[in-house]
Amino acid sequence: MAPAFTQNEYEARLSKVRRSMAERDIDAMVVGDPSNMNWLTGFDAWSMYVPQIMFITHDKDPIWMGRSMDAGAVALTTYLKPESVMPYPETHVQQAHAHAMDLVAGFISNLGYTGKRIGYESDTYFFSPKALSCLQAGVANAHWVDADLLLNWCRVVKSDAEVQMMSQAARLVEGAMQVAYENIAPGVRQCDLMAKILAKQVGGNEEFGGDLTALSPLILAGKAATTAHPMWTDEPFEDGQTVALELGGTRKRYNAGLARTVQLGKGSQSVFDTADAVQEGLHAVLNTLKPGVQAGDAQRAWQSVLDKHGLVKESRIGYSIGLGYSPDWGEHTVSLRADDTTVLEPNMTLHVMLGMWMDDWGMELSETVVITDSGVNCLTQFERDVMVVS
Amino acid sequence: MAPAFTQNEYEARLSKVRRSMAERDIDAMVVGDPSNMNWLTGFDAWSMYVPQIMFITHDKDPIWMGRSMDAGAVALTTYLKPESVMPYPETHVQQAHAHAMDLVAGFISNLGYTGKRIGYESDTYFFSPKALSCLQAGVANAHWVDADLLLNWCRVVKSDAEVQMMSQAARLVEGAMQVAYENIAPGVRQCDLMAKILAKQVGGNEEFGGDLTALSPLILAGKAATTAHPMWTDEPFEDGQTVALELGGTRKRYNAGLARTVQLGKGSQSVFDTADAVQEGLHAVLNTLKPGVQAGDAQRAWQSVLDKHGLVKESRIGYSIGLGYSPDWGEHTVSLRADDTTVLEPNMTLHVMLGMWMDDWGMELSETVVITDSGVNCLTQFERDVMVVS
Repeated sequence: MAPAFTQNEYEARLSKVRRSMAERDIDAMVVGDPSNMNWLTGFDAWSMYVPQIMFITHDKDPIWMGRSMDAGAVALTTYLKPESVMPYPETHVQQAHAHAMDLVAGFISNLGYTGKRIGYESDTYFFSPKALSCLQAGVANAHWVDADLLLNWCRVVKSDAEVQMMSQAARLVEGAMQVAYENIAPGVRQCDLMAKILAKQVGGNEEFGGDLTALSPLILAGKAATTAHPMWTDEPFEDGQTVALELGGTRKRYNAGLARTVQLGKGSQSVFDTADAVQEGLHAVLNTLKPGVQAGDAQRAWQSVLDKHGLVKESRIGYSIGLGYSPDWGEHTVSLRADDTTVLEPNMTLHVMLGMWMDDWGMELSETVVITDSGVNCLTQFERDVMVVS
Repeated sequence: MAPAFTQNEYEARLSKVRRSMAERDIDAMVVGDPSNMNWLTGFDAWSMYVPQIMFITHDKDPIWMGRSMDAGAVALTTYLKPESVMPYPETHVQQAHAHAMDLVAGFISNLGYTGKRIGYESDTYFFSPKALSCLQAGVANAHWVDADLLLNWCRVVKSDAEVQMMSQAARLVEGAMQVAYENIAPGVRQCDLMAKILAKQVGGNEEFGGDLTALSPLILAGKAATTAHPMWTDEPFEDGQTVALELGGTRKRYNAGLARTVQLGKGSQSVFDTADAVQEGLHAVLNTLKPGVQAGDAQRAWQSVLDKHGLVKESRIGYSIGLGYSPDWGEHTVSLRADDTTVLEPNMTLHVMLGMWMDDWGMELSETVVITDSGVNCLTQFERDVMVVS
């Protein structure tokens, strides 16, 4: 359970965050997003369901503040020393009148941050309005700065070691997709296919296994494909269904996504025509992605292909992907859509996600890619044609 | 993908929530917890990673407000009519300067709730400080009432149909634990055991399959058991390890938890002595649980056994369990700890969770139970002794 990266790498990440804090005149930062906590220190545990933060300063190691029964995970998964662990007791777990963040406010005050400028994440999953109001009430005279996504933007360009980790994640999802292809058929229950997919995602290969993917694996079969994120059921697949599979592989919390489409039995010509257009669109996107272009350029390349075929898709066609816990593997930074002016750089990693959700069926095609010095490299490698199961 | 319960049942739940709102003079309620959204209407999708709410009033059906590409899930999983769907467009998904909740505030204003008393959940996972501030800024003159856990408390006493669902979840976790027992051995990688566990949790049996459990399945092997919620690794199990397994089964999002302990090879006598004390403690707890007693009485029954054996455990020994999405299956209401004065009632469901985390090993023993008219019934049925694998 050692940290996934070298101590040097974590130190480089911390330096990057501190520079970003300094640019905004932030004295300390409250980090509630477990992905950011992990990225910065390696901290890894299923403890985000109770209040916990990583407290970042300019002169001390990051300090974990969380539930006492989870404190052991700091020693197991990070390079942090015992003085970086500030646990709160069980008396403050899910109590109506004693919030853990009241105690965390005391920790922060005792460290000398009353009256200081403290950044926080305003729009992350595991830092609630109540948590914020407890801190605001408990740290005297602090000035609270909305620094949402500050760490996320530090994460956008990956290290080579992170890209290597995502390559391993890609191996995991390729294996899972292969298992799906080998086992999907009319009459097979969705839950039984998903059981095999999950087993492969986690069992992995002889070299390494996997984690739970941050995004739940998705099966879009038949009319369920009229919505983008349905949950699987006990129902058997049916002859004639078009089935989109959006799967992931996750290695040390780094995710790779991969979506493909299967046609059970004879599909309508429109499925195959749409698939051809989508593949053409994917080529256009991959030919566009390279250092120096804007994220929006990729969307425009895609749109020009859609226009030619008379198709419409309103949602973005990709986003930055990397380290993530449930419920999302997107990093909430770069989006491939017309108005995103982010300039792409080498070692950015994106999930290019082309989903076409029609009135009574849907298809998906995606790749997890890394921007290289001169273009783009698909980390995921898998046959792109719609697979027909007859 | 029909709703899991009858329309009558959802109507009864809505009536209960409205009574609770009326008691606090709340005109409308913003519900951000996906478990509460599901409980109230059946809504089920992996869409909680973008802003979404269920808006509850006294005179209209609940109204889903969420991302347009997820709107189809309302028709697929609830009895709600088209007028109960208010989608926001893709332009407001993960954008720095255009938050979805700005649009949701407009929906609420247009429905006539400016100047009204509106309840919200202050401490749930998927309703952020930013989401709240957007609503507060966008609904003119509304009075915002912290109504955290209002719906959770409505969920504490289950219907018979919900207990039936949790019985099915219990069958799923029994199957998963059996698979774990049959496959755990020194030399087996943790990820390979977890692959088999997940496959059984989801593949289920001939009658029904399962969902992802809200709490990640946990393997506490060797020194990892010095923390309560470690993640599994690629490492093989080792001869001599004491391994606690905390697993779940989930049926239509209803969870049953089950924890057991395995000794690989020869264990120290203290493992078995502790296990005996914990089993004695479990009996004491189960003999105490019945309608009319307080939640704290169960903890006191447990503590009296610990005292006799000179053992110490500081955390609560159980909590209300039921419908839940990642990351938690606890309902954040009743806790089995000394100062919880909740009076137990028939059809409350609890996860009685006895974990003893020592300096270099740990053990767990748990049952998911339902309070009956006269006592308690274990929904989970599985051999309680420490299993020795030699």
